[in-house]
Amino acid sequence: MIKVGIVGGTGYTGVELLRLLVRHPDVELEVITSRSEAGRPVADLFPNLRGYTDLAFTVPDEEALAACDLVFFATPNGIAMQQVPGLLAAGVWVIDLAADFRIKDIETWQQWYGMEHACPELVEEAVYGLPELYREEIAGARLVANPGCYPTAVTLGFLPLLESGQSVLKGLVADCKSGVSGAGRGANSAMLMAETGESFKAYAVPGHRHLPEIRQNLSRALNRPVELTFVPHLLPMIRGIHATLYVTLEGDPDLQQLYESRYAGEPFVDVMPSGSHPETRSVRGANQCRIAVHRPQEGDTAVVLSVIDNLVKGAAGQAVQNMNLMFGLPEVRGLELVGLLP
Amino acid sequence: MIKVGIVGGTGYTGVELLRLLVRHPDVELEVITSRSEAGRPVADLFPNLRGYTDLAFTVPDEEALAACDLVFFATPNGIAMQQVPGLLAAGVWVIDLAADFRIKDIETWQQWYGMEHACPELVEEAVYGLPELYREEIAGARLVANPGCYPTAVTLGFLPLLESGQSVLKGLVADCKSGVSGAGRGANSAMLMAETGESFKAYAVPGHRHLPEIRQNLSRALNRPVELTFVPHLLPMIRGIHATLYVTLEGDPDLQQLYESRYAGEPFVDVMPSGSHPETRSVRGANQCRIAVHRPQEGDTAVVLSVIDNLVKGAAGQAVQNMNLMFGLPEVRGLELVGLLP
Amino acid sequence: MIKVGIVGGTGYTGVELLRLLVRHPDVELEVITSRSEAGRPVADLFPNLRGYTDLAFTVPDEEALAACDLVFFATPNGIAMQQVPGLLAAGVWVIDLAADFRIKDIETWQQWYGMEHACPELVEEAVYGLPELYREEIAGARLVANPGCYPTAVTLGFLPLLESGQSVLKGLVADCKSGVSGAGRGANSAMLMAETGESFKAYAVPGHRHLPEIRQNLSRALNRPVELTFVPHLLPMIRGIHATLYVTLEGDPDLQQLYESRYAGEPFVDVMPSGSHPETRSVRGANQCRIAVHRPQEGDTAVVLSVIDNLVKGAAGQAVQNMNLMFGLPEVRGLELVGLLP
Amino acid sequence: MIKVGIVGGTGYTGVELLRLLVRHPDVELEVITSRSEAGRPVADLFPNLRGYTDLAFTVPDEEALAACDLVFFATPNGIAMQQVPGLLAAGVWVIDLAADFRIKDIETWQQWYGMEHACPELVEEAVYGLPELYREEIAGARLVANPGCYPTAVTLGFLPLLESGQSVLKGLVADCKSGVSGAGRGANSAMLMAETGESFKAYAVPGHRHLPEIRQNLSRALNRPVELTFVPHLLPMIRGIHATLYVTLEGDPDLQQLYESRYAGEPFVDVMPSGSHPETRSVRGANQCRIAVHRPQEGDTAVVLSVIDNLVKGAAGQAVQNMNLMFGLPEVRGLELVGLLP
Repeated sequence: MIKVGIVGGTGYTGVELLRLLVRHPDVELEVITSRSEAGRPVADLFPNLRGYTDLAFTVPDEEALAACDLVFFATPNGIAMQQVPGLLAAGVWVIDLAADFRIKDIETWQQWYGMEHACPELVEEAVYGLPELYREEIAGARLVANPGCYPTAVTLGFLPLLESGQSVLKGLVADCKSGVSGAGRGANSAMLMAETGESFKAYAVPGHRHLPEIRQNLSRALNRPVELTFVPHLLPMIRGIHATLYVTLEGDPDLQQLYESRYAGEPFVDVMPSGSHPETRSVRGANQCRIAVHRPQEGDTAVVLSVIDNLVKGAAGQAVQNMNLMFGLPEVRGLELVGLLP
Repeated sequence: MIKVGIVGGTGYTGVELLRLLVRHPDVELEVITSRSEAGRPVADLFPNLRGYTDLAFTVPDEEALAACDLVFFATPNGIAMQQVPGLLAAGVWVIDLAADFRIKDIETWQQWYGMEHACPELVEEAVYGLPELYREEIAGARLVANPGCYPTAVTLGFLPLLESGQSVLKGLVADCKSGVSGAGRGANSAMLMAETGESFKAYAVPGHRHLPEIRQNLSRALNRPVELTFVPHLLPMIRGIHATLYVTLEGDPDLQQLYESRYAGEPFVDVMPSGSHPETRSVRGANQCRIAVHRPQEGDTAVVLSVIDNLVKGAAGQAVQNMNLMFGLPEVRGLELVGLLP
Repeated sequence: MIKVGIVGGTGYTGVELLRLLVRHPDVELEVITSRSEAGRPVADLFPNLRGYTDLAFTVPDEEALAACDLVFFATPNGIAMQQVPGLLAAGVWVIDLAADFRIKDIETWQQWYGMEHACPELVEEAVYGLPELYREEIAGARLVANPGCYPTAVTLGFLPLLESGQSVLKGLVADCKSGVSGAGRGANSAMLMAETGESFKAYAVPGHRHLPEIRQNLSRALNRPVELTFVPHLLPMIRGIHATLYVTLEGDPDLQQLYESRYAGEPFVDVMPSGSHPETRSVRGANQCRIAVHRPQEGDTAVVLSVIDNLVKGAAGQAVQNMNLMFGLPEVRGLELVGLLP
Repeated sequence: MIKVGIVGGTGYTGVELLRLLVRHPDVELEVITSRSEAGRPVADLFPNLRGYTDLAFTVPDEEALAACDLVFFATPNGIAMQQVPGLLAAGVWVIDLAADFRIKDIETWQQWYGMEHACPELVEEAVYGLPELYREEIAGARLVANPGCYPTAVTLGFLPLLESGQSVLKGLVADCKSGVSGAGRGANSAMLMAETGESFKAYAVPGHRHLPEIRQNLSRALNRPVELTFVPHLLPMIRGIHATLYVTLEGDPDLQQLYESRYAGEPFVDVMPSGSHPETRSVRGANQCRIAVHRPQEGDTAVVLSVIDNLVKGAAGQAVQNMNLMFGLPEVRGLELVGLLP
């Protein structure tokens, strides 16, 4: 049994981690911390967990965390980097669901996240936890940077086509739409139902923190610079990300074949039949990325449709997938979840 | 392994049965029938099942069904009663998720459902599949009538208080609210999103088919006539039923204690702490009925709040619970599902 | 032209007042105050108003308000009572959309609202702004207490039947459902879309501040005590209240006729044909209360269905209706709004 | 008073036309036809209209229509072209809200709409009813082809930049998202709330009928071929279209200035301040197109955000705007509608 701790479990990635871990056969939940909710049973805050855990939130306590085999950070950006060095020194492995260890270039990170990095030396060691790109490195890691939700959907969607060498690497467009749970559980009048329901808008068009992360993923994978425009939008629904990707083709690749063969062995990437339009609900609650690829009107623009549940393959599910890899478990353990449809 | 067939698997109770059964360790799905979708892979119609089943819909075929151990009917009312006699004769057990075998009084059934019953003799044999009332009978049954969604939420909510003898048995009010999935997957302009989204209404106030079913449940349990007003409403959401029940008290019962002791051993009924307000989302996708009981302003009206997922404890999940009982499996097998929140 | 000021215009009743007043032919908007948004153009916060007003929020300024003919308070409870005495003394008329002047019994008010009243002497003078009950008093008032949203829907729904003397005055049930805009625009994690979307729950079952207001309305109208249970619920939608009312009948009244004749001359109460089920969307954006009355199964319980838009007939629209009455304008001026359907 | 008839008033563009016309000071509604609902009062089908019209649907009747000054066709594609020649011959003017007269190239039309055109000679005469492009022609027309919803949002969004000559005219991307009311009121299981709620998907990526219409608008305006990729998506909400447009820049235009000056005199196009993100709700129920323009990361891709209410500026409101122009009324008459927010 893997002894697991969670730091900062009162947000949506926290409760989603709990949903997955309370049913994971190889995990023992040891501690979950929250300063604001210390003493309160987890199932009191999240009644869906009633009957599945008796754990209560506790104030953060280094010793309790140091006694774990693995600690997940489900905290705001900038928290994990304060505590990870100590935990690693104590022999604890770490998966950070925030952004502290995602960006390899420290200066870029500091610019987009507006703070100084507390342990730049660990950024190089940290493995970017996208198993479809770094499976082996994750299996050998003690510190994993769990990817952002948009970067997961966008990177998996672009990858096979860009890798094929049959597309232009500039002028890429990632038009992305996310459910509101991506904005977290914090009090914020902009995310009230009366503000976000029955309406739709783009946001952060001038620049969003996931832009450098996506750019890094693509550039590292191709070993060449990749230029893209990334526009996120807010959907009037709770879970789900839909990335619509536009790429100018060079040559005449067999798109369907490209995608199917690239992801042939992947347990959590599903390439749909030619002509399909994946719905976000088909992955609701499931650790799945579902992709379809089109070439409208036989033109020279390819359109890739890529959907995930932002809280599962885009956060907690991918974190469990990474845990399975780090601990030598079957990658799918605890993650064979059928999407909730309707 | 239980060999299972499903008749009429293209609706929402069908896909929900599939979601549960493809992951049930003791079930082998043998056949799923649909005249309109014959030949089409199930996972083509319901992409959330991609990777979990290769089954395709087939035209209804008596022989294939007769080779099963158990057949679920997820058909419109009036279909099961045509085929059940033959299946029982062939030694197949049956769970009907429609209403054909729910109402013991044939005349009442015929009046509310507007057709003649095809096998009234089996109605008496059929066991009403509410395990919290008829667990032992279900375990010995070969034909189970799976309860309606509203009757499940309402009956479980009323039961402990009415059984206590400390309430009036007339003037009961069941003000119920259901998500739109209860209306099924059939084309119906009244259930378009543009008709039901961002709006709320009561419907069928003069009389709804679940009224006689609720009345029967309560009257049989108490062995006395029970009079109630039942008003269903349509919620602008997909899954979930919330029953708000009003009962006039006689005497001064300890309501919290009444409910907790009545459901102490029940795996799928959860009495919340005093003062709680259950949310439908806490049971989304889970086979759970969650109940809270109040006595506002210390008056003589008790208010019971009872929530279920209409497609799970209100349909497919309860059917699997009944299957487990019929086949001597642990009642919770395949049903340890944590609600999807948020 | 009526010179109008608004205090506290950054919430939903504020923007709704603005929507109505910028198109009202007899109104000149002079000032709108907000400490937090001072200096910001109103249309910057509420872009639906772009092109309809150049007004900017200003810090509260007694002189500017004292120069108005009428001031609306769209503030949290407890603000208006601080400023109203001064304004009245300056000859300004006032409509308070909060609760400061709604409850005639000061002690009851102080108990439910948890503060001391700043000007109890004005509570007696204040007219409760429900035109269907107090039209003439409103026409002569200089201080109007605009009713709460639930009390408007519930009072109008109960009134004709209770006034008829053919019903029991105890054991009444008001099962009410409201869209989330009723909770206001303040940052509150409980009202996030991820918390309230796709879910439904009751709240404040032990006691809600609108209970004493409803009780007062009914008891004053009937000149007898009326006992009721009031249970509010939160709908996963933005606008609309649906009250489902249960009354035990005495005698055999012609319910349809009762309601039609009671509201025969009312411009903003619409009694639907027998057998109808009003939808909240039919009054979305409109200053209308739409009612249907049923007697299910010919029993002795009457069921009344009453819908309003909580921001219009339940707040800003009713306030404009009161303004029209106070200033001798046609009652419907600026309020001939067709509901937005779909 | 303009005597107005509506053919096919039972869909969403029909009820929206009625919402606008019953309050239009210069219009007298004479007749509204529907074969399926003949004899039924309009306000029975659409209760938001109760109190605003006593009109009932009638079976289509040439004489009654011929007595009108103007007939709106709110019918499925292919109906208007059968009846328009007769009406024009009778001196009646026509606005078709369907697609029969939108595409100038008959062959293209026949290919995309899958039928033969009944009156190709009138296609040339018909004026495309986008006042921002063809105001004068509309004022002199007797037959107006009201634009599609997507083409309105996309054309208005692209126009100023493409006209400036500072952009590439190929590789354009129009990533569009529409509420479900765009799919109409017909019974269609794909548009049930249980199918479209809480989910998001692209559709018709291989080709959508609005593609040739958009292409024609842009090519005619620029007098040069324009190539674009158009991907429509379905939003889990009722009203609103959001077009996100991507254009490669040539040169260094002042985008904000370009848009503001192009639409300076337009009553129904609102260019928001630099850095804005228009929300669809800001135009809900209003005849407005709201636009913002960005240049993310100072790159060479411009991003234009354009929102409309698909039923108003995208259908019925634009039709009334065209009517005002045709009859010499002020263009804004009956259309000064403030968006319903929240």
